[in-house]
Amino acid sequence: MATMTAAQRRAEAKAEYDTYLSTCKSRRLLDRLSDKWVTLVLCALAEDDMRYSELARKIAGVSQKMLTQTLRTLERDGLVIRRVTPSVPVQVEYAITQLGQSLVEVVYELKRWAEGHMDDVETAQGRYDRRNASRG
Amino acid sequence: MATMTAAQRRAEAKAEYDTYLSTCKSRRLLDRLSDKWVTLVLCALAEDDMRYSELARKIAGVSQKMLTQTLRTLERDGLVIRRVTPSVPVQVEYAITQLGQSLVEVVYELKRWAEGHMDDVETAQGRYDRRNASRG
Repeated sequence: MATMTAAQRRAEAKAEYDTYLSTCKSRRLLDRLSDKWVTLVLCALAEDDMRYSELARKIAGVSQKMLTQTLRTLERDGLVIRRVTPSVPVQVEYAITQLGQSLVEVVYELKRWAEGHMDDVETAQGRYDRRNASRG
Repeated sequence: MATMTAAQRRAEAKAEYDTYLSTCKSRRLLDRLSDKWVTLVLCALAEDDMRYSELARKIAGVSQKMLTQTLRTLERDGLVIRRVTPSVPVQVEYAITQLGQSLVEVVYELKRWAEGHMDDVETAQGRYDRRNASRG
């Protein structure tokens, strides 16, 4: 086959990424996305655009360092946009991009899974701990 | 309302978990699940039951320490089961539980998202880096 359309080339290129491979750059992306602060920031921004202070309030316990770093990484990866309104004082808001929106649908499910299966997980933990205690 | 059915009480209890709260135990669960090794182990076991060595081969670059620790946490959380066949030599296989299966559907989407959007993310990174270079 001599020619491929641009769309076919893109599909081909995409199929080559494999997170099982340690050398594949998609592994590093999966690593960046596998982070509770990423999940919580994206889910919060999916509800509404927010200022830094609003995000910090919504996501209890996040340090200033972690929130700043998370927002910067998300912005660089094209998932969040930092919107500056040239008012006095200047107003900065964070919003989700279209690319970020497609990821929110995934990480929101992860957040919901953790909240929805906490009881099942605790039951399993109790069973595991009793089994191991009786072995000791 | 004086009485609630067991199902209603369970639903009520579930609704109380909130990962936005740093003190909620579902926050710690979200933290444990937000881990690339968790995602890769669950996705691998969703394909087939595997021995430790098979998992180590499939998930390139995982250290013995990380894989052992990940499997133990997944087992304690009730997501993976360690199945011992009393043959000679003893055979140990890891398999996904029913609870784990419901999570696989979520983390598999995360894995797929990373592999499927690598190009979009790289484009965004290039744009971000050029913008910041021209500012400096």
